[in-house]
Amino acid sequence: MKDFQIVGIGNAMVDILARCDDRFLAEAGVEKGIMQLIDMPRAVELYAKIGPAREVSGGSAANTIAVVAALGGRTAYVGKVKDDQLGQIFAHDMRAQGAVYETSFAARDAVDETGRCIVLVTPDGERSMNTYLGVTEFLEPSDIDPGQMAQAEWIYLEGYRFDGPDSHAAFAKAINATKGHGGKVSLTLSDPFCVERHRDAFRLMIREDVDLLFCNRAELLSMYRTEDFEGALAQAAAEVEILACTDSENGAHIVSAGERWDVPAMRVEIVDATGAGDAFAGAFLWGLVEGHPLDICGRMGCAAAGSVITHIGPRPEADLRALFLKHGLL
Amino acid sequence: MKDFQIVGIGNAMVDILARCDDRFLAEAGVEKGIMQLIDMPRAVELYAKIGPAREVSGGSAANTIAVVAALGGRTAYVGKVKDDQLGQIFAHDMRAQGAVYETSFAARDAVDETGRCIVLVTPDGERSMNTYLGVTEFLEPSDIDPGQMAQAEWIYLEGYRFDGPDSHAAFAKAINATKGHGGKVSLTLSDPFCVERHRDAFRLMIREDVDLLFCNRAELLSMYRTEDFEGALAQAAAEVEILACTDSENGAHIVSAGERWDVPAMRVEIVDATGAGDAFAGAFLWGLVEGHPLDICGRMGCAAAGSVITHIGPRPEADLRALFLKHGLL
Repeated sequence: MKDFQIVGIGNAMVDILARCDDRFLAEAGVEKGIMQLIDMPRAVELYAKIGPAREVSGGSAANTIAVVAALGGRTAYVGKVKDDQLGQIFAHDMRAQGAVYETSFAARDAVDETGRCIVLVTPDGERSMNTYLGVTEFLEPSDIDPGQMAQAEWIYLEGYRFDGPDSHAAFAKAINATKGHGGKVSLTLSDPFCVERHRDAFRLMIREDVDLLFCNRAELLSMYRTEDFEGALAQAAAEVEILACTDSENGAHIVSAGERWDVPAMRVEIVDATGAGDAFAGAFLWGLVEGHPLDICGRMGCAAAGSVITHIGPRPEADLRALFLKHGLL
Repeated sequence: MKDFQIVGIGNAMVDILARCDDRFLAEAGVEKGIMQLIDMPRAVELYAKIGPAREVSGGSAANTIAVVAALGGRTAYVGKVKDDQLGQIFAHDMRAQGAVYETSFAARDAVDETGRCIVLVTPDGERSMNTYLGVTEFLEPSDIDPGQMAQAEWIYLEGYRFDGPDSHAAFAKAINATKGHGGKVSLTLSDPFCVERHRDAFRLMIREDVDLLFCNRAELLSMYRTEDFEGALAQAAAEVEILACTDSENGAHIVSAGERWDVPAMRVEIVDATGAGDAFAGAFLWGLVEGHPLDICGRMGCAAAGSVITHIGPRPEADLRALFLKHGLL
């Protein structure tokens, strides 16, 4: 048995969550519903404009790994923070959830700080993310422990992590170490604009290395530069062993080996969509490594996503096992 | 018209909120339901034991002032943080809520950090607080701006702030500047063990300077070293112009000039009691300076307290004006 069922690699950051209305987004120059990269001066400017906030550990793959850990999975996370107060918060929350987290801190005298994401939540529950990457941009190959990757049944790569000077090399190192020991590779496309920035690299990796692809409708369409959703689903499904495409209120579409399952979304009142896709991926992966059928994995994903969007913050607060039991998934 | 209706002085800190059960409290050596002071090594040790947490600005008087600001009151806060990430969070949240906050930061090279409170919330909604004061312990007379105090209709003094080498002198300076310009003084007793530590100082200040006293049942009994609640109420009421004593599910008892109002508590499901007393004081003070009758002030206080205990975190998330309107208080 390998030490880890899933090892995630991504941008480690703390979320700063605040509510606002659509007018505020327009006046502050924030594009709604996507992740936009910002520098520190912009982060300071935007932070000064937003209302009272709360801080919780975030980061897309980190949220996913937190779900795996919360479900009792053997899991680890790789992502860089600094040895500052926000970095300590991130590290604490990851370990307290039960994930192994051993990435070395960026030094205290580093110019940049721990990454943060100013998440603005509008009354419709949509989240608009403003990400200062900080030190997490500088995750490099030396941060990847090949021994840990060799001990992973699956690695989970965050598309956002393609933004960064040494990230492609770090991913390549992780993939080689994992595949060299019989492990498998999953990837999330993260965001349609992230796909715009890295389309060629994503497509190459998907064709050559990815066994399980997570995406949502907008990301998939962006990937194949098309408006034909069914065509894009078919194209992606032909390139990977398992495709898991979330589709907001339409739930998720799982395609594998010529079979397809359309899984319905949970009917809940959306308070904050932050972390919905991350929670879906975490629950899906956990179901997969625990040997559940793919449609059940999809239903677990939708249940976890439905849980996380009923409250402010990107990580589930409910007991997910109890939720799965309630819905007959366990 | 004075610039400020209420200026609060207290311990500025960020809350680290996590859930746990009673067994955890016992095993971690945390006394349930009270505020206990801890040093940095203990803070590090306890933090390593607790589960995933969330960070929100706290501090008792700061929470009270946040309520006044949220209601649209003209208000300011005095309390010390460091120029570190937690300090920036505290300052942002205070200003973003609409309060004036101009206390100078402790220097970056100070040995201590911004204060924090590890708040452990048990399933019964009770909160057990573990406070590392950090730099907030060192608020001193030079941090009190007599010009600001002269511009205060009321000042609001936090009993917790009696822990600290120069705090009594700082309070004396604030009281003199306020009273010298016709302003009034309110005080909260904060915590029964805080009363134990500072009973004589509290009693002297109440007799000589306090116009409005906030407390709860346990604090009042501790103050007069008695089990006779009615007797303690009468004794306190004889020493101040207005007494506002909260009494958990029994609501609050308001006594002034020989009149008494027993105000019922809101019937809500308690998720987290953190900040209930702070919210009561903020809403009560706002009602008072806006000219509402004392029984209405008490009802506003109970409504605000009832709102804040329905969610994790010490500051109200609901629209308090809307809540007051719904209950016929505005």
